[in-house]
Amino acid sequence: MANQYTNLDTIKFLIHQVHHSEAILGKKRFASYDKTTVDMFLDSVKDFSDKDLFPYIKDMDEKPSFYADGKITIHPQFEKIFKQAAELGLVAAFFNEEDGGLQMPGTLFHAAYYIMEAANNHTSGYLGLTAGSANLIASFGSDELKATYLEKMLSMEWSGSMCLTEPQAGSSLSDIVSTASPTENGSYRINGQKIFISSGDQQFVDNIIHLVLARVDGAPAGTKGVSLFVVPKKRITLDGGLEDNHVITAGEFEKLGQRGYCTSHLVFEESEGWLVGEANRGLSYMFQMMNEARIATGRMGAGIASAAYYASLEYAHERPQGRKLTSAGKKDIGSEQTLIINHPDVKRMLLFQKAIVEGSLSLILQASHYLDQEMITEGEEKERYNALLELLTPVTKTYPAEKGMESVSQGLQVLGGYGFCMDFILQQYYRDIRIISIYEGTTGIQSLDLLGRKVMLKNGKVLEWLGAEMQATIAGAMKHEALTPYAQQLTMNLGLVQQTIGALMPLAQKGDFERFLADATTFMDFFGTIVIGWQWLKMATTAAEAMANGSADYSTEFYQAKIHTMKFFYKYEMSRTRGLSKVIMDELDLTVDMELSYLD
Amino acid sequence: MANQYTNLDTIKFLIHQVHHSEAILGKKRFASYDKTTVDMFLDSVKDFSDKDLFPYIKDMDEKPSFYADGKITIHPQFEKIFKQAAELGLVAAFFNEEDGGLQMPGTLFHAAYYIMEAANNHTSGYLGLTAGSANLIASFGSDELKATYLEKMLSMEWSGSMCLTEPQAGSSLSDIVSTASPTENGSYRINGQKIFISSGDQQFVDNIIHLVLARVDGAPAGTKGVSLFVVPKKRITLDGGLEDNHVITAGEFEKLGQRGYCTSHLVFEESEGWLVGEANRGLSYMFQMMNEARIATGRMGAGIASAAYYASLEYAHERPQGRKLTSAGKKDIGSEQTLIINHPDVKRMLLFQKAIVEGSLSLILQASHYLDQEMITEGEEKERYNALLELLTPVTKTYPAEKGMESVSQGLQVLGGYGFCMDFILQQYYRDIRIISIYEGTTGIQSLDLLGRKVMLKNGKVLEWLGAEMQATIAGAMKHEALTPYAQQLTMNLGLVQQTIGALMPLAQKGDFERFLADATTFMDFFGTIVIGWQWLKMATTAAEAMANGSADYSTEFYQAKIHTMKFFYKYEMSRTRGLSKVIMDELDLTVDMELSYLD
Repeated sequence: MANQYTNLDTIKFLIHQVHHSEAILGKKRFASYDKTTVDMFLDSVKDFSDKDLFPYIKDMDEKPSFYADGKITIHPQFEKIFKQAAELGLVAAFFNEEDGGLQMPGTLFHAAYYIMEAANNHTSGYLGLTAGSANLIASFGSDELKATYLEKMLSMEWSGSMCLTEPQAGSSLSDIVSTASPTENGSYRINGQKIFISSGDQQFVDNIIHLVLARVDGAPAGTKGVSLFVVPKKRITLDGGLEDNHVITAGEFEKLGQRGYCTSHLVFEESEGWLVGEANRGLSYMFQMMNEARIATGRMGAGIASAAYYASLEYAHERPQGRKLTSAGKKDIGSEQTLIINHPDVKRMLLFQKAIVEGSLSLILQASHYLDQEMITEGEEKERYNALLELLTPVTKTYPAEKGMESVSQGLQVLGGYGFCMDFILQQYYRDIRIISIYEGTTGIQSLDLLGRKVMLKNGKVLEWLGAEMQATIAGAMKHEALTPYAQQLTMNLGLVQQTIGALMPLAQKGDFERFLADATTFMDFFGTIVIGWQWLKMATTAAEAMANGSADYSTEFYQAKIHTMKFFYKYEMSRTRGLSKVIMDELDLTVDMELSYLD
Repeated sequence: MANQYTNLDTIKFLIHQVHHSEAILGKKRFASYDKTTVDMFLDSVKDFSDKDLFPYIKDMDEKPSFYADGKITIHPQFEKIFKQAAELGLVAAFFNEEDGGLQMPGTLFHAAYYIMEAANNHTSGYLGLTAGSANLIASFGSDELKATYLEKMLSMEWSGSMCLTEPQAGSSLSDIVSTASPTENGSYRINGQKIFISSGDQQFVDNIIHLVLARVDGAPAGTKGVSLFVVPKKRITLDGGLEDNHVITAGEFEKLGQRGYCTSHLVFEESEGWLVGEANRGLSYMFQMMNEARIATGRMGAGIASAAYYASLEYAHERPQGRKLTSAGKKDIGSEQTLIINHPDVKRMLLFQKAIVEGSLSLILQASHYLDQEMITEGEEKERYNALLELLTPVTKTYPAEKGMESVSQGLQVLGGYGFCMDFILQQYYRDIRIISIYEGTTGIQSLDLLGRKVMLKNGKVLEWLGAEMQATIAGAMKHEALTPYAQQLTMNLGLVQQTIGALMPLAQKGDFERFLADATTFMDFFGTIVIGWQWLKMATTAAEAMANGSADYSTEFYQAKIHTMKFFYKYEMSRTRGLSKVIMDELDLTVDMELSYLD
């Protein structure tokens, strides 16, 4: 168990058994994948992570990226990581074969990144943003743009970044003011400032391809006037060389965590840029990538929580302290000290972490499964999978972020005073995970998206589809007597979702959107908990079926652990939903019309 | 509001109106204190904190204490701080006049320290540990020890530390192995290692007086063989000089937060020590100081949360971003951006912080009030106040620690991406407060104390006394129509406490203490929430009475804010108690008898 940061058995169990990889593998786009290739790829990623990622996570924190003389320098190990990752196909994974990609199923892709992020959460952003930027070019760019950039990006010779945020606008992208002026040769002159640009500059690639939101001169105000441009750090000359394109690295943001992952302040000064797709459609292009980025962010949170879980588990197995209570309620001081893992409260903190980590991972793979299904189906079926993914996306981003923080904090608590010491890694994970609820739209913004848009998609039909998915899980669970009470609890919670939304709807119908959405964040907590409860019931049912069938894929203890952790989740977490539902349905408004002077 | 870290009006309102300072001031031990002297002292401490503490909090984090060449160096500002604090009487505050103290009421003392800690949480430990160590000497030491140490400590010429923890023992003090061998002159030779020693070494005092737990040769095993010694860093020679006493500073623990507050590793090598009180009673002496230290720790957590609240409030008042929702549920992009404080979700995050911060502070002052009452009453009355303090102590330590973390995290969230940046102070408070649930007994240990000992003190009579105190608050609230629903909720919750404890008792009665205590931490969350609900009802009732009486002590908005925040606490926090109670009463055991192999 030493130096463990994730459990490959659980990942494979989730992919193949819980989320039915057989429905995906070998089908259409995924013709070249079968169970063996999936498992071999995961083994390779794990091996790479063991050797090249995990051993460097603490050093990347202690020797963070830094800005000097107009450029950002990142940890030397990244040179090897980028090369190895590209060779493993981790940037090209998701692309079409015709664009040089591997057409990998999302389930496998996300599982692979999850392993890397559990090993080292400072790494995947460099790869993921390169893939994401290249994906914008592949999806919406001209053949010329594709020919110029894709191959070099997919091999990680060039990396990519997404330049959205500006100092005055933050999350409010309608307020972007960067400008794009047409030139005679069909390109644009880009001017403006972008902040919080992850992976915006580093020394181990020959070029950095920025995907930049800006306004073409004379474009309409608001979101409808925002266009997307490719702006390379270095312009490609006629002879194929590279020349400076006036993309200035103006500084770096020193952060609480993820300190090996650089965050830059970029200034574009008459930089040459090329329009991607049509003018004024930049935000809609960007938002089509947003689902992917949001799932990736949640996945990163789950990965960090996984690493923290195994670090605290290892400590609990090794640290003797105190004694078990005797039947007289006294400590037996004559005996040896016991390992702290034998204290019920420590077991509770560890089980809590396991419940959050594996529940989150299962949700991420559930969302990935819908993504894969969407890619191999047509018509109404495709629409249904796409809509389910849309609905689950804000939850998949937020649950691992918010509950992951709690989970890591419990991991730190297991170590007592040592948890607070820089020599132990829990304090780093505690810092690293704090960004996850902020990246790619804060929890508040995800919650507005969930309650304000997703829950009512297609007039509530999508929510009904999700309900049907949960009902299918419930029906499976009802076949196992031991799971029946939990299936009933999930049924009750589905009713509670209806009741809660029903109570809010009159506010939306009468146009009182501020009050309708005032407790959206509480709704996210409520709804997210039920979604994870569904995932746990699914895992427990799969485990119960495997045991009933005498499956020897995993040990009996492995399956029983899933059922046990499901029970833990229902006892300690699902028990919160009634109280949360009451908060949401309570008509007392304490925020919308509050006097600001009350905050003093 | 700029650079605000606490609200002096709220502190005075709590001391005088909510917690009835008139019952204390001028009485017996506190004869020389009246409302005017209290307010003047608080004003002085605030002024000192404004000038000498708050401006240095970030610099102390960025230039932390460090170990080199056998000694620890702390931030230069501490030289001035120690001098000023001693002049203000902040070390001598609590001592008897005959020992050179000020006989200050605990309410005032804790309020003063709370102000200092909100301004700068790296400071008070140096002062508080000096006072605490001196208090052990004053309470249990010989006249000779008192004559030697008290005056110099109360003036902060010498500082103090408490040396409990050893590497192999951690929280398990029965496993202490440091030794004490009698010498011919009545002193002892002390040998052993102590870790996590706060304030264990620094450059701004002439001597450091360590209060050390060790075993006299041949002492019984376990807690009954632990004695308390005074071991000065420098021994006092016959001519009144100071000579080295072989107390070696072996290193410092580099910490996640409170980096200006040093944490040392000390080695005693044949150091000369003097027994305090009787041999083998060291732990009982130490535990008599523990209530004080635990309340101080909770207070520090509340102070950090207060500072974070005002920092995030200031940001929310200044940062424009996004727009209010129009009745069509769309953003009105033609308008100027709004300040984020106008977004309901931001108001929710700010009100949450206010509810936690002021609720915690009120509990701290409630506990202090019982402490003061205990000191001026006799017989059964004294016993009652002492017992109420005992019962509330683990809650007063834990609630501000655990909910303070959530509160600071919400403060960080208000700042979005900037909250994660080192330029803003929220990230520091997020790190600083993480230790509070670990210091002076972790949350797990406090919870065992609460459920395993305190709730059943005097066969449950003490819990009844606390119930009676809450009933008195409820009776007051029932006189105000607007408060009636909340008074009823608190009544319901009192019933829930009885019901929950009643459901657990059979486990204790049949000697199954492990199961009885398995969910002690959940019980702490449950019980602590209700205790804070009581405090909020008390504050709201006081505010309602003041408005009804036309009191002009504070503005109507000030009073209304208290009632509003009470409502917030009941809606968002008291709504959790039913679910928590269900968890505790659920008989399903998932931890005590769990297979360890389930954690993999």
